Amino acid sequence: MDEAKRSFLKRSIALLGASGLLTSRPKGAVAAEPPDVPPWMKSPGAGFNEYGAPAKYEGKVTRTLIRSQPGTTGSGAARTPLEALDGMITPSGLHFERSHSGVPDIDPDKHRLLIHGMVKRPLIFTVDALMRYPMVSRIHFLECSGNSQLLYQPTPPSLTAGQTHGLVSCSEWSGVPLRLLLEEAGVERGAPWILAEGADAAAMSRSIPMAKAMDDAMLALFQNGERLRPENGYPVRLFLPGWEGNMSVKWLRRLKVVPAPIMTKDETSRYTDLQADGKSLMFTYPMEVKSVITRPSHGMTLKGSGLYQISGIAWSGDGTITRVEVTTDGGRTWVDAPLGTPVLPRALTRFRLPWRWDGGATVLKSRATDDTGARQPERGPFIAEHGNNATFHCNAIQAWSVAASGEVKHVYA
Amino acid sequence: MDEAKRSFLKRSIALLGASGLLTSRPKGAVAAEPPDVPPWMKSPGAGFNEYGAPAKYEGKVTRTLIRSQPGTTGSGAARTPLEALDGMITPSGLHFERSHSGVPDIDPDKHRLLIHGMVKRPLIFTVDALMRYPMVSRIHFLECSGNSQLLYQPTPPSLTAGQTHGLVSCSEWSGVPLRLLLEEAGVERGAPWILAEGADAAAMSRSIPMAKAMDDAMLALFQNGERLRPENGYPVRLFLPGWEGNMSVKWLRRLKVVPAPIMTKDETSRYTDLQADGKSLMFTYPMEVKSVITRPSHGMTLKGSGLYQISGIAWSGDGTITRVEVTTDGGRTWVDAPLGTPVLPRALTRFRLPWRWDGGATVLKSRATDDTGARQPERGPFIAEHGNNATFHCNAIQAWSVAASGEVKHVYA
Repeated sequence: MDEAKRSFLKRSIALLGASGLLTSRPKGAVAAEPPDVPPWMKSPGAGFNEYGAPAKYEGKVTRTLIRSQPGTTGSGAARTPLEALDGMITPSGLHFERSHSGVPDIDPDKHRLLIHGMVKRPLIFTVDALMRYPMVSRIHFLECSGNSQLLYQPTPPSLTAGQTHGLVSCSEWSGVPLRLLLEEAGVERGAPWILAEGADAAAMSRSIPMAKAMDDAMLALFQNGERLRPENGYPVRLFLPGWEGNMSVKWLRRLKVVPAPIMTKDETSRYTDLQADGKSLMFTYPMEVKSVITRPSHGMTLKGSGLYQISGIAWSGDGTITRVEVTTDGGRTWVDAPLGTPVLPRALTRFRLPWRWDGGATVLKSRATDDTGARQPERGPFIAEHGNNATFHCNAIQAWSVAASGEVKHVYA
Repeated sequence: MDEAKRSFLKRSIALLGASGLLTSRPKGAVAAEPPDVPPWMKSPGAGFNEYGAPAKYEGKVTRTLIRSQPGTTGSGAARTPLEALDGMITPSGLHFERSHSGVPDIDPDKHRLLIHGMVKRPLIFTVDALMRYPMVSRIHFLECSGNSQLLYQPTPPSLTAGQTHGLVSCSEWSGVPLRLLLEEAGVERGAPWILAEGADAAAMSRSIPMAKAMDDAMLALFQNGERLRPENGYPVRLFLPGWEGNMSVKWLRRLKVVPAPIMTKDETSRYTDLQADGKSLMFTYPMEVKSVITRPSHGMTLKGSGLYQISGIAWSGDGTITRVEVTTDGGRTWVDAPLGTPVLPRALTRFRLPWRWDGGATVLKSRATDDTGARQPERGPFIAEHGNNATFHCNAIQAWSVAASGEVKHVYA
């Protein structure tokens, strides 16, 4: 944190200390004594359980299900409720899901992974065999390329931060570097591409450049400490840090080393980006630098003027977040928000900024910059450049309006 | 990673590449073609759900429940199955639990936190008020002081790594620095202690030194991104990084600034360490430097000689892990195991080491060193110094024997 940021934070916290606005002040001497004994202290509580769950009072904190194909149950997406979360890790139960034909019920003892094609030694791996290889762990975000697609719409969606931007989540992924297995199979010199195929009914398939496979690609077996969840690829998924989520093929059953991209249905009929000029971008891999304020955000109501904390997440598939600026006056002035540590490459980064709301109507925005120097664009110029036809790769700045009533809404501003 | 470690790892991985011992080699040309289409690809899979759960095939990966008071349901502990996990994060559903009178069912809207005693302005906080304060996020382990207590026994327990050492877990905790609230209440000059009281039926209570409260103590509201789990203190717990778990008082309802430690039942009848000479140590706060190999470990069977990966966790309540050494020959030679990144203070650190098992009987051990220079002791000298009377603060080295049959067992060696 540089000196300017430190100084800003110090001033803000000093303001807080003097304010006392946030607390319910006790009235009279009784407050100096312990509060009444609540009912839950009067008899023993619940016993132990083998696998825990959230408190019943948090029952509304769920993924938002959006089915893309009417009449099907497993084609669509489930979005992370970003506005209810904090920190950088997404609990696995709330990690977003994008599935093309439901979640297959895979017996791990019967699952096989084949590496074949342009290799010296085709190999078949059981899950037990994969578990014996050297592993690494990395904290990385995963983002669907269709995340935030509603911002392409001409009018702002009346939806929460999670419903609009919740196709991004962040986990600690542990697994085997793909490079190790490719080296064991003996990839032929100069072989440039790999077809990755999932074991779901859609046989979800993408072409992966060899350079990425040999760099930081992983066969992920664990997510946040435990084995992968079914909807995130159990028992094994490909994981390509920073790249659009569909390429991290779930339920991975086949890697075929090939001389050219395969042009699968999933990279021709889908996952191309139709531009304003009628041309399409293909093979747009990294998810661009982006941020969103998660609190306060659409659907919340501020309870009176005073001190609040603005909290949000930033990320970049191209590297590490170096800066997040926040405006609380609709873009007239911007201030750097301190970044939570550790700041890791291709991981969600939490930013937070104390904010004293004067009770007037205003607009909040955040914009992120990564270590390549790329900065998140305003929505206006972004749409002017890319048009309204596309579905994917929208990284425009998100604006939230705050009304004098305290009501927070999604706006284009 | 220093050059020696890098070089060792490189050699080990080179060995792996040449071995091919780990894979089931396909027999004949058929292996160059895609494998048979499995049944789960032949029809659409399961639909979406609002809050996910592990695969049914992982149903045996659970906490081990050990009730310390027969006839009660909520007094005892539930241990994390360390041997089934990887990485540094513990999924919240498997985070260990230690409760003294069950888990209270606390309505967050009715919960109150009182700060009183030697303060200028006694304050009462609702959970909503706490949510408006500036927050921080930190990845930290939490360890019960009674973890690994079975190593005080004269004979090695016939239990898994998790059943023996699973009262340690690691989460990302997000919440309000306690210092901010104490400054707002206006702690009287020189006030040295704080009583922290939980809202469970045991009114679990500990005395906390002011210096720790003003340093890195946090009122934790979120765990791994979502609100605290009930068994870990919902809606708010004290969190004291690196210190014995019971001091991070769950379901926190009261902080009273006091002139001297209160000598609560929880720090006199319990959580003192009876030594060999009949004296007891009190107020032993930090959890000492420690490590344990989680794979392979007791209860597992190696399937034939060849290459394996040794994987384990190390941590220190006094700081940051700087080194983990592993022996695969019962202590004759030790080699540095590379540490997974990021290596964070007072967090679990994953270490991993490729190991070629020659099929003979041997003993595996790990020993950790932290940045204060403290190194984990062998069990023999540890018991010689502390005796067999204590229950808490055992950080002795854990030994696993490997038989020629591949069977792995807990031994004292």
